[in-house]
Amino acid sequence: MDILHYQKEFLSYLESKEWVREPKNLYEPIDYILQLGGKRMRPILTLMAADIFSGEFKKALPAALAVEVFHNFTLVHDDIMDDAPLRRGKETVHEKWDTSTGILSGDAMLILAYQYFENYEPEVFQKLAKLFSKTALEVCDGQQLDVDFETRKNVSIDEYMNMIRLKTSVLVAAALKMGAIVAKTNDENAGLIYDFGLNLGLAFQLQDDYLDTFGDPETFGKQVGGDIIENKKTFLYLKALEVADKETAKKLKYFYKRKRKDNTIKVTEVTRIFQIFDIPLLISEEIKSYTQKAFDTLDKMRISQENKDKLKNFGTWLMNRTV
Amino acid sequence: MDILHYQKEFLSYLESKEWVREPKNLYEPIDYILQLGGKRMRPILTLMAADIFSGEFKKALPAALAVEVFHNFTLVHDDIMDDAPLRRGKETVHEKWDTSTGILSGDAMLILAYQYFENYEPEVFQKLAKLFSKTALEVCDGQQLDVDFETRKNVSIDEYMNMIRLKTSVLVAAALKMGAIVAKTNDENAGLIYDFGLNLGLAFQLQDDYLDTFGDPETFGKQVGGDIIENKKTFLYLKALEVADKETAKKLKYFYKRKRKDNTIKVTEVTRIFQIFDIPLLISEEIKSYTQKAFDTLDKMRISQENKDKLKNFGTWLMNRTV
Repeated sequence: MDILHYQKEFLSYLESKEWVREPKNLYEPIDYILQLGGKRMRPILTLMAADIFSGEFKKALPAALAVEVFHNFTLVHDDIMDDAPLRRGKETVHEKWDTSTGILSGDAMLILAYQYFENYEPEVFQKLAKLFSKTALEVCDGQQLDVDFETRKNVSIDEYMNMIRLKTSVLVAAALKMGAIVAKTNDENAGLIYDFGLNLGLAFQLQDDYLDTFGDPETFGKQVGGDIIENKKTFLYLKALEVADKETAKKLKYFYKRKRKDNTIKVTEVTRIFQIFDIPLLISEEIKSYTQKAFDTLDKMRISQENKDKLKNFGTWLMNRTV
Repeated sequence: MDILHYQKEFLSYLESKEWVREPKNLYEPIDYILQLGGKRMRPILTLMAADIFSGEFKKALPAALAVEVFHNFTLVHDDIMDDAPLRRGKETVHEKWDTSTGILSGDAMLILAYQYFENYEPEVFQKLAKLFSKTALEVCDGQQLDVDFETRKNVSIDEYMNMIRLKTSVLVAAALKMGAIVAKTNDENAGLIYDFGLNLGLAFQLQDDYLDTFGDPETFGKQVGGDIIENKKTFLYLKALEVADKETAKKLKYFYKRKRKDNTIKVTEVTRIFQIFDIPLLISEEIKSYTQKAFDTLDKMRISQENKDKLKNFGTWLMNRTV
């Protein structure tokens, strides 16, 4: 079964749910953010893992929904913290409604996510909820580190990788492991698929960093250069500081000191610095390396070659994306 | 065992936990709010219920902590929504840190609350987590209704009672039922103690409304008249609108139309209207009626008279409070 099939199945499950109920001001924003779209990468992974380990994926639909609702909860709260006006080209929840609505609807989504696990028997329920709580707390840790890094002068690449591991990768890994839990596979397979997801998630986030500056404006959904404008200390920036000469590093730091109204020169100049110091190549190598680590984990898994290929195809699909 | 003993046991359990870990900016606010004090009414109820139904309460400490951490999570997020500068006489989390910290630390607390249930075996875990999710979502509903009522012109007393049931009472009821679940009592007892808590919670909230305007400024922790200053449509206000003549109702509505800098006259005048129309007496009767309903539920319970008295004493203690 291919990726788009899982996506379609997930979307029809999502749409079968009645989101809006009383009080409407609490649930309409939840419906809104869940309908905004996105690749639905995380729930697809849950379904795929369940399919791989048990030959059926439908039982994993509630767990997949929990992951997607949780992911969207983090988007709603992060957008408030980042003061972001747009999400997927549409108004963010706190912009369309207000901050209070964003906070409270987000809270409700976090609780709803836990409720979807109630579809499973006690043992599976507990395993899912435990993994979910651990992961959710790690995502909070990652978000806090991300916020902390904004005002910190020196952030090492190791610290950055740890931050994106927590903020992004653990949820990708947990999404896969949840499918494995629902499928009741052995602990070894569940652990290996988690590691696969962790490395794939790191590659995914680095790819995000790359696309934000070097993506094709025609196909990339967001404003190219957004991270530069926001002075985000991404892998590109941190790596450039590491490899550039003193003078260029100073120039780069100067550009990232404050936000400005007109960003044309800033984006052009910073991008040029990245290119001079071969940062696009260096990050591509990192992406390849994490993707390879993920694929190596697959080899240790006791599943059919066909299923390994399925996971590999997903990884390749994800890494070739332009959005 | 008396109430203060449960309180002491809970506090030493709370203090035995290491709250602060990395990233510090996420966990220090959690430590701060949990150390701010309060009556610890909800965890006391969990411990008491466990003791009543099983003769031991220590097993219920993690569940009691979950309830208290959840309650404090709602305070942190509500204080952001209400833009409240003070909580228990000290700076609120978003004032001491900032809004982002308040949002994220609150999120982490909600997740931590779920994690405390991991101390229990799968069946008990699922029962606790299910009740907790249902309750937590109801509390969100209640908070949303509270926000909605601020801008709504007509709110009936029935709607108000439904709002405080969701915002306050269900958590009191669930705190008790969690103790019953940990104690593995039968479903009938668990249902009855929930109903006891629901009515006690309503009486408790009405008592809060009463104390906010008619409490002794010497002993009442908050500013007397705070609800009037904030134009809160409490039971006192809604009941006064119901029983007062047209002209007085108009005057009352006028006072509640906007916030002002000097509130001396407003508080005096509104309090006088409440007194003229016997609102303090009417609310006292309601409080007594809900307390009595709670006590009636006790009679149906198959527990010793001694244990019934214990719950009655708690109810009486709660209703005689001046804070």
